[in-house]
Amino acid sequence: MQEYGSPFVGYGQPSKFEAKVARTFASAPGTNGTGAARTPLHLLDGTITPNGLHFERSHSGIPDIDPDRHRLLIHGLVKRPLVFGLQALDRYPMESRIAFLECGGNSGTLYQKDPAQLNAQALHGLVSCAEWTGIRLTTLLDEAGIDPKGQWLLAEGADAAGMSRSVPIAKAMDDGMIALYQNGERLRPSNGYPVRLLLPGWEGNMQVKWLRRIKITEGPTMTKDETSKYTISLPGDKALQFVFPIEGNSIITGPSPGLTLREPGFYEISGLAWSGYGRITRVDVSADGGKSWATAALQEPVLPKALTRFRIPWRWQGGPAILQSRATDDSGYVQPTRAELIAERGTARTIYHFNGIASWAVAENGEIRHVYA
Amino acid sequence: MQEYGSPFVGYGQPSKFEAKVARTFASAPGTNGTGAARTPLHLLDGTITPNGLHFERSHSGIPDIDPDRHRLLIHGLVKRPLVFGLQALDRYPMESRIAFLECGGNSGTLYQKDPAQLNAQALHGLVSCAEWTGIRLTTLLDEAGIDPKGQWLLAEGADAAGMSRSVPIAKAMDDGMIALYQNGERLRPSNGYPVRLLLPGWEGNMQVKWLRRIKITEGPTMTKDETSKYTISLPGDKALQFVFPIEGNSIITGPSPGLTLREPGFYEISGLAWSGYGRITRVDVSADGGKSWATAALQEPVLPKALTRFRIPWRWQGGPAILQSRATDDSGYVQPTRAELIAERGTARTIYHFNGIASWAVAENGEIRHVYA
Repeated sequence: MQEYGSPFVGYGQPSKFEAKVARTFASAPGTNGTGAARTPLHLLDGTITPNGLHFERSHSGIPDIDPDRHRLLIHGLVKRPLVFGLQALDRYPMESRIAFLECGGNSGTLYQKDPAQLNAQALHGLVSCAEWTGIRLTTLLDEAGIDPKGQWLLAEGADAAGMSRSVPIAKAMDDGMIALYQNGERLRPSNGYPVRLLLPGWEGNMQVKWLRRIKITEGPTMTKDETSKYTISLPGDKALQFVFPIEGNSIITGPSPGLTLREPGFYEISGLAWSGYGRITRVDVSADGGKSWATAALQEPVLPKALTRFRIPWRWQGGPAILQSRATDDSGYVQPTRAELIAERGTARTIYHFNGIASWAVAENGEIRHVYA
Repeated sequence: MQEYGSPFVGYGQPSKFEAKVARTFASAPGTNGTGAARTPLHLLDGTITPNGLHFERSHSGIPDIDPDRHRLLIHGLVKRPLVFGLQALDRYPMESRIAFLECGGNSGTLYQKDPAQLNAQALHGLVSCAEWTGIRLTTLLDEAGIDPKGQWLLAEGADAAGMSRSVPIAKAMDDGMIALYQNGERLRPSNGYPVRLLLPGWEGNMQVKWLRRIKITEGPTMTKDETSKYTISLPGDKALQFVFPIEGNSIITGPSPGLTLREPGFYEISGLAWSGYGRITRVDVSADGGKSWATAALQEPVLPKALTRFRIPWRWQGGPAILQSRATDDSGYVQPTRAELIAERGTARTIYHFNGIASWAVAENGEIRHVYA
């Protein structure tokens, strides 16, 4: 208190003492931008992910787009093809909604036979949540006028990968959004600046970033990104293609690996639950590997297709414990155990849509590790 | 699309094309950190303010606090004085809430006799909104055990100014919070890292940043920050001291000065409404200086003591127009006209708690300026 503090700056940054609160990332061999950067879920609290820490998945690095030169084309089976610049988009009626985004490959490591010794960020960090603001897709599609034969759309990004996915028109018309703002400010480059598709509750990959083109089509386009990838291989040469909504899921963010308990006593067990089907209605927590359960408190307001924070007090007696959480949503969907999910999908046949119950084992010395239980 | 994009980074930043989206700031003569930095409301959308753009008001710069060395003391009229380090605080039950913060001096320029030719950021930019996570003040005060004679508390910051304010215990017990996280991550240094007081809906100055001490007292302490400042001088040598809640208020963020309309046609009139008394129930918008009004849509969920986004479509015919907004909250409070507020408080006698209806005049050439109407 005896020193005068530092001056104002135009755009603020976190404290230097929080330098460890950062995304971790890995790229495919030979690239430095094809891969993913993960949100440090175990070091955050609340439900909003700050923009600097929102997870990212890129297939060819982050393009550097001049918004004055960017265009969004709507064409295909429409009465009137349309091209929009940013200034035109800015004049349309907007809406905001808080929604989670999750990569279809999040938690995929849990399909492996043995539990990877990683923390919550490395295992589950491909999920984040923000307030998105933009234009309802219906507004623009109605203006283009969709031919009744147009039942799907192709959404294509302006990255070097030309990332593209097929989306049923029904979803686009239900709650699809052309997002322009993320937590109040313009989208971050890593999250699609200046325009991305938002399909609340559906897998992240479909919510095409750097959106440059929407083509209305009769059927799905069968792009490389929805055939060779983002398809769930099953035992017996079967596969699930076009699995769009993210199923009900939850994870405990604290206590979790790396956050060692220093002494017996009271702690809060806290975590995140979400479902692409709707609203989380209940999260149960176990400290004995699923033998007994108690219902956690859900932080209000509980919003559909948004991260929901759950909390429950816990007294650690100093002995071994196995922490688990189980989410239920308003469609009645209950998060499965890992064993139930593996029985259906096998181990290591796919990396997509893992939503089995995860387990943290607390040792007598307070250290926490990832286990299958 | 022919160039590979840029690689991942641990903590992301906005696009270089958004460099103009920054706080503007001014310091008192001879200082470079005693003053305020203002949120660029006219360039944002939605209701969450990204942490890098949250407004700040500092009385002696931003202290550089090592969280491992920071302590929070609770003492005075308590059964058991307590000292907390951050590790201890982190084990308490937490809650999250989305709440606005507004400096008691926001919009104070509108008390001046003539309308200042400034934009929404310069006139109204001392209000922001975030998701705050921390410990309910009751949890810690109950543990300390308050003497029944303790009806107030003194909250003191660890900045060089020793900024301190008196708060009625009833408010602390109602919804006061010891905030540790802002939009998911630890508080920003400019917003009180590592600990601040949050008193939802009350004037920003009371929500003491860099909180180091809470002293339970019988009455208010009459600190320099609540006697010489943050007291509303009235005509006739009277003054209003201890005006705590922020009254119902609203502003139109777009169209607004600097955002020139390029041609007649459809626009969305959009803005923010808030009230320290509770929930916004209605915002009316006028395009003719208050002669006629239409009710705007409120973005759901409408949360108490949080910024609420309102929107209404508008067709600009190309002629002169005067845009106004008027908020109503669930206590029945209706935002007054500037004339009504000035009749009570006079011009230029105070800078605090201005919440009169603001007016933007649209000229035939599409330029917009601040007027009194």
